[in-house]
Parts: sequence; C-alpha cells; structure tokens
Amino acid sequence: MPLGEFALIDRFFRNCGSRRDTRVGIGDDGAVLTPPAGHELVAVVDTLVEGVHFPPQSPARPIGHRALAVNLSDIAAMGATPAWALLAITLPRADEDWLGEFAAGFGELARAHDVQLVGGDTTSGPLTVTVQVLGVVPRGEALLRRGGQAGDVVYVTGTPGDAACGLALLQGRLRTPATARATELDTLRNRFLFPEPRLAAGVRLRGVASACIDVSDGLAGDLGKLATASGCGARVEITQLPLSESLLAVAGRAAAEHFALTGGDDYELCFTVPPALAPALGGLPCTAIGRLTTGRGVAVLRGDSVIEFSHSGFDHFAA
Amino acid sequence: MPLGEFALIDRFFRNCGSRRDTRVGIGDDGAVLTPPAGHELVAVVDTLVEGVHFPPQSPARPIGHRALAVNLSDIAAMGATPAWALLAITLPRADEDWLGEFAAGFGELARAHDVQLVGGDTTSGPLTVTVQVLGVVPRGEALLRRGGQAGDVVYVTGTPGDAACGLALLQGRLRTPATARATELDTLRNRFLFPEPRLAAGVRLRGVASACIDVSDGLAGDLGKLATASGCGARVEITQLPLSESLLAVAGRAAAEHFALTGGDDYELCFTVPPALAPALGGLPCTAIGRLTTGRGVAVLRGDSVIEFSHSGFDHFAA
Repeated sequence: MPLGEFALIDRFFRNCGSRRDTRVGIGDDGAVLTPPAGHELVAVVDTLVEGVHFPPQSPARPIGHRALAVNLSDIAAMGATPAWALLAITLPRADEDWLGEFAAGFGELARAHDVQLVGGDTTSGPLTVTVQVLGVVPRGEALLRRGGQAGDVVYVTGTPGDAACGLALLQGRLRTPATARATELDTLRNRFLFPEPRLAAGVRLRGVASACIDVSDGLAGDLGKLATASGCGARVEITQLPLSESLLAVAGRAAAEHFALTGGDDYELCFTVPPALAPALGGLPCTAIGRLTTGRGVAVLRGDSVIEFSHSGFDHFAA
Repeated sequence: MPLGEFALIDRFFRNCGSRRDTRVGIGDDGAVLTPPAGHELVAVVDTLVEGVHFPPQSPARPIGHRALAVNLSDIAAMGATPAWALLAITLPRADEDWLGEFAAGFGELARAHDVQLVGGDTTSGPLTVTVQVLGVVPRGEALLRRGGQAGDVVYVTGTPGDAACGLALLQGRLRTPATARATELDTLRNRFLFPEPRLAAGVRLRGVASACIDVSDGLAGDLGKLATASGCGARVEITQLPLSESLLAVAGRAAAEHFALTGGDDYELCFTVPPALAPALGGLPCTAIGRLTTGRGVAVLRGDSVIEFSHSGFDHFAA
C-alpha cells in the first residue's frame, strides 16, 4: 500500500540527521531557527538529477549521501559550519525501500557533521533531489572566491580526479588494466559515490586562505572561476598534481592528469594562500599546485610548456 | 546558440528581485547573510513539478510567480517577513524566451515583497522548480500550527476555492455556464496562475492568532492539520464559507463549496483566534468559518447536519 506524503515524511525524515536545539523543525509551514550571536548565515543549494548527476537506477544510499555532501562542500568552501538542511525530493513513486536507503545515506552524513533536517517537500515526478544547507560563520570570516592576489600559492586538498575516474568505472567507460586491484577500483568508485566534504579544512582556512572554491566541475575550471573572481589568472604545474596511487594504477598517468584537471565531482577545496601564511597550513592534507598570476585564465604547465586540455569543466547546457 | 549555465544565471537571475544589504549574494559557493538582531530565522522550501503542480506547456511567467508565491505563503503562515530566496531550476533545455518570462514572473513578485535572490543552481533535466525562502520574525513571535485551543474561532482570509476552479477551467475539466462572463473566468484562472501570498495578514496576526497554516492542499485538509497539531478537532459551518461572486457564477453553489473545502492552491491563511482577541482582527479581510473543538478531525456542518465530502486535501502518493 502506498504511503501518503505526510506519512512518508514522518517515517523517514522526521528524525533524519542530528538533533539540534531548534525551536521548530519539520512539521510546520516553516522551520524556526536561531543563528548564534556574532555569526553570519551561509546559505547554499544544489540539485541532483537522475541521469545527469548520477546514472539511472543508481542505488539510493549514495544518492542520499551525495545530495547532502555536495551542499556541505559548498559550506566548507565558505569556511562555515553547517547547522540545518532542507530537502526537496521529487520521486516517480513512493518506494519504501528506496526511501529507507536514501534517508540512511543522508542521515549518516548529517549526523557526522551535526546537521539537522528541519524541513522539506515531497512531490511526485522525475527523480530530482534539491538540498539547501544553512551554515554559520563568525562575522566577517567567510572565505570567498574573490580576495586572491597575484603571487598567492594555489592549493588543493586531497587527491582530485579519483571521483571522475570512479564515475567512468561505474558507467563502464574506462577499460581497466588487468593489473588493477579490486580495492583500487572500489576506492575510486566510492570517491564518486560517497564524497567527503572538507569541512574541517574549510574551518582551518579562515584567516589563512585569501580565496577558496570547492571543486565540483573540474579543478582547472573551478580554479578559473576563483582566479576570475579575484581579478587574476592562474598557473598550474601539472607534475605537482596530487594523484592517488589508485588513480594512477587504474587510469595511467595521462588519463589520471586529465581526470584531475577536468573531471569534476571531487568536492575537494581549491584555495589560495599568501606565501607568508603558508606555514599556517601545517598538517592540513593539501598540496601546492601553482600560483595566481597577473594574467587571465588558467595556464597548465609541464615545466616550461603550456599543455592543451579538452575542456575546462562541466557546464550544463553548454554546446 | 545555447547559453552556458553560468551565462544563464548571470543574465537572468543576477539582478532578479530586490536589492538588499547582503554581504555576498549570487556568484560564490554560498550566500552570506546577516539576520537582524532580536529575530529568529524562518526557512521554507517548496517544489513545483511540470505535470503535477502546473499543466505541461504552461507559460513561464506564472510558473516563476507561483514558485516564489507558494514559498512566500509559507512565510506568511509563520507570521514572518521574507528576506532572501534561493532558486534551484531544472530545465530540459536553456530556452532564453522561457527563462526571460520565468525570471520576470519571479522577479516582479520578489520586488513587491523586498526579496533578494541570493543563490541558486541550474541543471538540465525534466522541468522542476524548487525555491527556498528565508524570512525573519521577532524572537518568539512565529505563528505555529500548534497553539490553538477548543473554542478558538477558525478564520480564513480571502475567498478559497477560486484557484481550484481556475485550474479546472485551464484544464478544460469544467463546463462553464453560458452566462459566465469573460472577466469572471479570467479572475478565477488568475487566482490559480498568480496567487498573492498573504504576507501583510501574517504579520498582523502576530500576537493575535493562536495557530496558523496556509491553505495549499485544501481548506478542510489543512485545517485538519492545524487542529491535529493543536490537539483539537474543528467544526466548519459550510454556509459561512466566503465564496467569491466569480466562483458562484461560474461553478454554482454546490461545486463552489466543494472547491473551497477541498480544492487546494488557494494560498490563503487559515488561522484560529481566541474569542476575546477577535476585535483585534478589525479591517483584516478574513471570515469566521467555525471553531476548534474538543473532538478529533474536521466536521463540516450545514446547520445541524454533518456533510460528507469526497476527500480532505491533495496528498501526493496517496492511493
């Protein structure tokens, strides 16, 4: 027997995620929230569409995880701490098993970062998930895309390219070498399915990074947006890219570099730091990959040669 | 030539709506907002799906208006004042004419209520529009669904039923009498296409209404939710329903009553007031239609008889 909308919300989402001290959460016309004194509010929104952001018939648990993770990644890029989420989910039909798995993926990540689900809307239609996250940041300390200056060092967290390679594996677009190990393949697939938003890194970067962006559409393209917003160009030294052992083993160096520069879905942070502040990054898992310049656009260099690469990021609707 | 996602956002949405004193709006990973001191934040989200919430091939301007209006209606029901909106729009293709009309409908209503569009996400896929609105309300003054008590008078603003009749007209589901005037038909269609959120009424009801809900799924069903949240039942006197002249002329009394009780899409406010506070409503366009009771559920009465009606509201996924 199909569940009604209200029963669905109640069963799967009322206690999904963390419990915070919130005056009114799910169950009224709106949530009533109290941001802490001395803080600004950071609001982000991102949508996942079946067949665009994940393959048709994908399992529900990673969809729930990713729908929240891509938003938490935006919160991380602002140097903020997440607090509340709203979920708008459109489903072809109310499949209880699917919803249970979706809520498990969403809820586990929400609890890990103390995020409370405080509202939502459930509608019937083609599978689409839109999440809004509200975070808080001490007044004036948000990390922006603008603020970088020529000479600042460009860093990226983690190992970009893994997720794009994982997606290629999931879609059967990549011929895997016979030497690839199952654990390497699993690692790459899971980097696409269960991205980990770099919230701790974002908080560490307050007062240190001059500009910051999360890498969702490809490192080169997203760095280009940061550089443009900062009124700069950027230079990336391709031999400095932090490529994971799994990525190199499965894709080989040339494809690995391409995935890392253009692949998207990494949800790492790309940020710039004035050279004098670089020591403040001690212990943060990040790698210097280049510099902001007085030019325009992103130049990818191998030694003294500028590399051509086929596109600079994933742009919906582009020709 | 198709526009890229970033060009689209820039062209149609960067200056859509009001300009407020916002530290960071569209163009970074998130918006940075400063809620006023002494206030709580109210967060709402609602989705419109083509073929579910509006007919396929609907013109874009009313879709833009309605996508914002249904959210502002939730803000009104909380007694809050809207401030910021985020827009997640999924489109089969980037049709510039369509986007221009959509942004015009959204922007006109946003400017009328001083709402700034501060963020969004544009993706390709089946037509789905999700809007989040953030509003503010003086601390402790939000109107909730709970709080009504047996004996409180039940009110509704405006003339419910018009929008549901307008939708029936748009869908060709209603045979219109030869005597129906074009202006009456237009009035009803526009009540569906361009609902006016009752924000001024919501603010007036602070400190007066004991409970409040907006009427999106049908008056009887939504009153039932308010009554349940308040631990009460409710009684509605059908002859007290404020039916518009247009609705009566086009639908006749029996269908008009049915549209008003069950039709949905009204975006009026249904609220309860202790009898002693009723004089505070002076001048507010609203009508007393019944009482909260010590029972359970909603009883619709005509004099001493309980009326049967076919369903209590629109519930996605219900059998």
